[in-house]
Amino acid sequence: MRERARRPGPTVRTRVVEHVDGARRVREDHLATEEPLEIRLAWPGSPARRVGVTMRTPGHDFELAAGWLVHEGVLAPDRIAAVRYCTDTDLDPLEEFNVVTVETATAPLRVPGPRTVSSACGVCGKESIADVVGDTAAPPPVAPIPLDLVTRLPDLLRAEQRGFARTGGLHAAGLFEPDGRRVVVREDVGRHNAVDKAVGAVLLASGGTAPVPPVLVLSGRIGFELVQKAVVSRIGVLVAVGAPSSLAVALADEAGLTLVGFTRPDRCVVYAGDDRIGV
Amino acid sequence: MRERARRPGPTVRTRVVEHVDGARRVREDHLATEEPLEIRLAWPGSPARRVGVTMRTPGHDFELAAGWLVHEGVLAPDRIAAVRYCTDTDLDPLEEFNVVTVETATAPLRVPGPRTVSSACGVCGKESIADVVGDTAAPPPVAPIPLDLVTRLPDLLRAEQRGFARTGGLHAAGLFEPDGRRVVVREDVGRHNAVDKAVGAVLLASGGTAPVPPVLVLSGRIGFELVQKAVVSRIGVLVAVGAPSSLAVALADEAGLTLVGFTRPDRCVVYAGDDRIGV
Repeated sequence: MRERARRPGPTVRTRVVEHVDGARRVREDHLATEEPLEIRLAWPGSPARRVGVTMRTPGHDFELAAGWLVHEGVLAPDRIAAVRYCTDTDLDPLEEFNVVTVETATAPLRVPGPRTVSSACGVCGKESIADVVGDTAAPPPVAPIPLDLVTRLPDLLRAEQRGFARTGGLHAAGLFEPDGRRVVVREDVGRHNAVDKAVGAVLLASGGTAPVPPVLVLSGRIGFELVQKAVVSRIGVLVAVGAPSSLAVALADEAGLTLVGFTRPDRCVVYAGDDRIGV
Repeated sequence: MRERARRPGPTVRTRVVEHVDGARRVREDHLATEEPLEIRLAWPGSPARRVGVTMRTPGHDFELAAGWLVHEGVLAPDRIAAVRYCTDTDLDPLEEFNVVTVETATAPLRVPGPRTVSSACGVCGKESIADVVGDTAAPPPVAPIPLDLVTRLPDLLRAEQRGFARTGGLHAAGLFEPDGRRVVVREDVGRHNAVDKAVGAVLLASGGTAPVPPVLVLSGRIGFELVQKAVVSRIGVLVAVGAPSSLAVALADEAGLTLVGFTRPDRCVVYAGDDRIGV
C-alpha cells in the first residue's frame, strides 16, 4: 500500500538568524507555504487537460480552482460538476495535493493553454527548485556584507523610489555592490517586472558580458519567482523589506543565495546563507 | 503623416474623493501607470513571435524585455542583438509603446508560447478593459455603504488573517455583505489566489447559483487583474488597504465598480463610484 502524503499546511516552521539592535540570535520562525497548483479541466469526450498552474498557499485548493476557472472566463459559475485532487498512481504522493481536476458536464467557454497532460506530469515545489538550480551555476563568491550595511539597504533603495513617493503603488528593485554602491534602481507595479528591469539595465549596458551586481534589494515580499530571477542572474545576496515564502527560502538554500527579510534600520531576519552576513 | 502618440509616463493624475476624519474633499492624486507590454522575439529565419505579455509600468521597457527573456531562460545574457518598439503601420499609435521586439542573432534556448503574431495584434489597456467589460453584465445595485463601515472593513478582515499574523507573508481577500457581515476570508501568498479562493468558496457552497457578496476587501494593493476578477464576479464595491494602479481605476470606472484605496480607521480614498459611499 502506498504511503499517504501529509497534506501541506498554510504555514511551515523554519530556523532563522535574527539580528536586533546588533544582537544575534537563532530562533524558530513561521513561513507562508508556497507550492505550485496545477489546475486540470475535464469534460465529456475530452481527457483532463492542464489549463493553468499558479504558485499558491496550500489549502482551499478546490475553491481556488473553481474561482480561477470562473474568473478566467473558462466556465460559468454553475457549470462545475465535481472537483477532486489527482490520484494518478504514478504521481508522487506529495504531488497529489498540487494537482486539482475540475469536471464539468458541458464544454468550457474557452480552453486556456493547449497542453494535454500525461498522468506523470505533476508539479511540486521540489521539482520547481530542481528546474532552476539544474540550469544555473552557483553565484560567484561574495565577501561578507557588514550587517550595518544590510540594514541600511532599504533606505538606500527608498531614496530612489520616486514613483512610490508619488503614488504609494510601485514596487522597487535595486542592484548594489557589496560596498553599498547603488548601481541601478527600477520601479514597477509588478515586483517581478522591477527585477527584470534592473537586471535588464545592466545587461543592455554591457551587452550581457558584465556580471550582474551581487546584491539585490526589494521593497516588498519575496516569492519563489523573485528568488528564481536572482538565481538565474547569479546574484549572491537578496535583501527585502517583506517576508519570504517557504519555496523562496528553499530555493535560496539550494542555490546558495543569502536571503534576508523584514529588513529595518535596527533589525533583519536571515533565512538562508547567514555566512555572507558579517557582524 | 501619422500623429505620434505620446509615450505614457510611469504615473498619471486622477481626481479622487478623500475622506479624512469624516471630512470629504475632492482632490488630485497620482496613480502608478499600469499597461500591458507584449514582448516579441525575432531571430534569423523566424518571423517575430509573441513570447510573453505582462502588465507593467511603462518606462525602461527594453530593459524589462531583456531581463525577462534572460530570467525565463529564453536567451543567454549576451545574445541580444537589438531591441525596438513596434512600428507596424496598422498598430494603433498608442499601442506602439506596448509592443517591444527583441532581435537575437541565434536561435533562442527555448520559445515560450506557441503563437505567431500578426502585425495587427497589439495590446493596450483600453483593449484589456473592453475585453473584460464586453463579456460581463454591470454589477447589481448596491445600497450605499456607510463611510464608517468602509473604514472599519480592513480591521474586520485582519481579525481573520491568522496566517498573516504568524508569517507576515500572506495576502487576504474577504467577501462581506453591505451591512458588514463577513461571509468568507481567504489567505494566500498570491493576492489573486486569495480572491479566487474567496469567490470559489461561495461558488462551491451554492453550486454557482447564489450571487457573490457585493463587497470585496483586500489587504494589499489593487492591480488590473484584481479588479477584473471583481468585475467578472459582479462585485459592487472593492475596498483595499493599498494603492490602485491606473488601469485598475480605469476598469472600475468603466464597469461601474466602486473602488476605495488607502483605507484606514480614520481615512480612505475613493477612486471610482463615489455614489455608493454613504456619509
